[in-house]
Amino acid sequence: MARIVMKFGGTSVADIPRIRNVARHVKREIDAGHEVAVVVSAMAGKTNELVAWVQDASRQEGSSLNLYDAREYDAVVASGEQVTAGLLALVLQAMGINARSWQGWQIPIRTDSAHGAARIEDIDGSDLVRRFGEGQVAVITGFQGIGPDKRIATLGRGGSDTSAVAVAAALKADRCDIYTDVDGVYTTDPRIEPKARRLSRISFEEMLEMASLGAKVLQVRSVELAMVHKVRTFVRSSFEDPDAPGMGDFDNPPGTLICDEDEIVEQQVVTGIAYAKDEAQISLRRVADRPGVAAGIFGPMAEANINVDMIVQNISEDGSRTDMTFTVPSGDVARALAVLEKNKASVGFDVVQHETGMTKVSVIGIGMRSHAGVAATAFKALAEKGINIRAITTSEIKISILIDGPYAELAVRTLHSVYGLDKQ
Amino acid sequence: MARIVMKFGGTSVADIPRIRNVARHVKREIDAGHEVAVVVSAMAGKTNELVAWVQDASRQEGSSLNLYDAREYDAVVASGEQVTAGLLALVLQAMGINARSWQGWQIPIRTDSAHGAARIEDIDGSDLVRRFGEGQVAVITGFQGIGPDKRIATLGRGGSDTSAVAVAAALKADRCDIYTDVDGVYTTDPRIEPKARRLSRISFEEMLEMASLGAKVLQVRSVELAMVHKVRTFVRSSFEDPDAPGMGDFDNPPGTLICDEDEIVEQQVVTGIAYAKDEAQISLRRVADRPGVAAGIFGPMAEANINVDMIVQNISEDGSRTDMTFTVPSGDVARALAVLEKNKASVGFDVVQHETGMTKVSVIGIGMRSHAGVAATAFKALAEKGINIRAITTSEIKISILIDGPYAELAVRTLHSVYGLDKQ
Repeated sequence: MARIVMKFGGTSVADIPRIRNVARHVKREIDAGHEVAVVVSAMAGKTNELVAWVQDASRQEGSSLNLYDAREYDAVVASGEQVTAGLLALVLQAMGINARSWQGWQIPIRTDSAHGAARIEDIDGSDLVRRFGEGQVAVITGFQGIGPDKRIATLGRGGSDTSAVAVAAALKADRCDIYTDVDGVYTTDPRIEPKARRLSRISFEEMLEMASLGAKVLQVRSVELAMVHKVRTFVRSSFEDPDAPGMGDFDNPPGTLICDEDEIVEQQVVTGIAYAKDEAQISLRRVADRPGVAAGIFGPMAEANINVDMIVQNISEDGSRTDMTFTVPSGDVARALAVLEKNKASVGFDVVQHETGMTKVSVIGIGMRSHAGVAATAFKALAEKGINIRAITTSEIKISILIDGPYAELAVRTLHSVYGLDKQ
Repeated sequence: MARIVMKFGGTSVADIPRIRNVARHVKREIDAGHEVAVVVSAMAGKTNELVAWVQDASRQEGSSLNLYDAREYDAVVASGEQVTAGLLALVLQAMGINARSWQGWQIPIRTDSAHGAARIEDIDGSDLVRRFGEGQVAVITGFQGIGPDKRIATLGRGGSDTSAVAVAAALKADRCDIYTDVDGVYTTDPRIEPKARRLSRISFEEMLEMASLGAKVLQVRSVELAMVHKVRTFVRSSFEDPDAPGMGDFDNPPGTLICDEDEIVEQQVVTGIAYAKDEAQISLRRVADRPGVAAGIFGPMAEANINVDMIVQNISEDGSRTDMTFTVPSGDVARALAVLEKNKASVGFDVVQHETGMTKVSVIGIGMRSHAGVAATAFKALAEKGINIRAITTSEIKISILIDGPYAELAVRTLHSVYGLDKQ
């Protein structure tokens, strides 16, 4: 007997037939004798509808401004998970399973006061554990808790993954299964490279890099949380037949296990190729090369909530002036340029150049910490395909390369192949 | 300065433009210096959608049974008001009005444990009153509170009216305005009798009779509550221009005031004509005329949740057998007959006759307590039109007459005219 947290996303609970299918996954684990807590998202499309209403409601006449009270946003948007949790509890009951729904404030899942993007601070799992003893399944609203002001606080989009991992940590669960519309984490996007393979295991660190790079399987914060609390997390599909052979295999269910790197026996040098499209490159020429200049550029960007990604600074020619290049999402370019213009005098630079439609391709692998030449292999492979490299940044377990957008697919396939990821 | 509770039903908050219109009604009262609490229903159609999901979710495979956990029903269905309350708070904020939403459990509105049909036991209005002092409008989810089990409990369909009156009583409000899609209470249904007039005032007792008879303006329980706590309740339209002349008149706003009969200066003998269609008549012949026989018939009906209305028992011919006639909604006839058949032996009766498609027409007026001949006037008027009377029951302030369905409209118009209700 083990304790399992199962999380189902919006497409997995999009309507009652799919909720019934989810219930069959739950029943399989119950029948195997496990204690189960389920965390659910809102039905697909529901959160978007609620958010659109909030935006419409808070529109001020004759103004393009759309500022709203995040506490009211939370009260409205959190209702989506409330509906799914109640419905899944009812479906489970109709199958003869003892189940009840829990809203974040009932458990309680306590958060900080950052409504709309709150962080979970504490979960009191005692009630849930007591009811496991009575054979009851807990069906928990994802994405939400209760703030210090005693009002509902949501965790930000994708927050149900984080709810699930946090609940698993609080309950000291043996496993946290994230059921989604893909059947695991792949070596790269299978829509680009059909030879992409599903990874049986990936380390937390690698998954963090994959998640933050647009391999949008899991919310980044949930991976961080799983890493800190060492929650063994499986990514698996909710659309497979719940009773197919192997689905109930406790140690090796179909899917990808995100785990501590110690658990990964046969380590690859490179684990996967991620990419992020629609990046824009902004270059500042002849920036004054003195302490505090980077802060002078990127501080105002952060204040304007612009997500600056790659930053490359060249050595200055004469020790007084340098070039500074960085990337932002294409949609943020106009705002970024406006921020730069406003701070031009205080920072001191000559010309701003920018280019949109770039793609960032990243090679990720914990093994590269102990292997030389990984980056050189990438550069050589891309050069052979005639792909021009616009910027490079590296970390301990990642090499990111900025290229022109039209070469994105070619680059992903080239790198996937050169590191042997398409071979079993 | 006064304290006002304003309640808006589902059609009044059906979409964001209508919620904006509601906010203008609120703004009018705020601008006049009043303290305001608003109680809202779910957007029109939303509750039905949620109820349908609950029914679908709790359907058991291979069974026509549809029993569900009322606590989960409550958790799902209560989400509708949660959305409206948040959206109205946002719209008010966008208009520059200090407002916040309150869910039943946050205030708290405490109920008993009868999930799905809970009764409000206690409302702690202290937080709301303190915030009135800070100039804040309270936007409250109708239809729901929190039960002794710390889970959401709903009050049954139409429960938002009851929420509003209960909040008004708890806050000792000067007035409770029920905004709806009609502009008041009429002498009869204007769709049947175009000469129907809007009543400026009606007593609680008369409104109770009107409400329970299918003049579905207010939930019956809300009227009971208003009567007990002497809450001055206005029924008025949310669809009129919020800023039209007279709308902000504190003492005489457009609409119908439901109040203590002392407040009604010029009392009419008859106040209104109500009707209920689709009644069925069931007659038992030669029922044993002994103590306990009525309980033997109607006890099992109540247990089967069949709403028995008019009951007529004739004097027995020979002191041992009598006839018993009663009405139920046509939809309940089959179940009622089954219950009777099951209890036939123990009760003892000869034949069951039944007829569907009847209509009950009722003459209502507090003045008839002190006026003789009111009933005779009705019988004579109906006889002159050739309308056959199938059964009669009377109370202190009401005469109910069962007639054949096809004569319903003619009877309503005849009675409306004979008591002079079509004259100013």
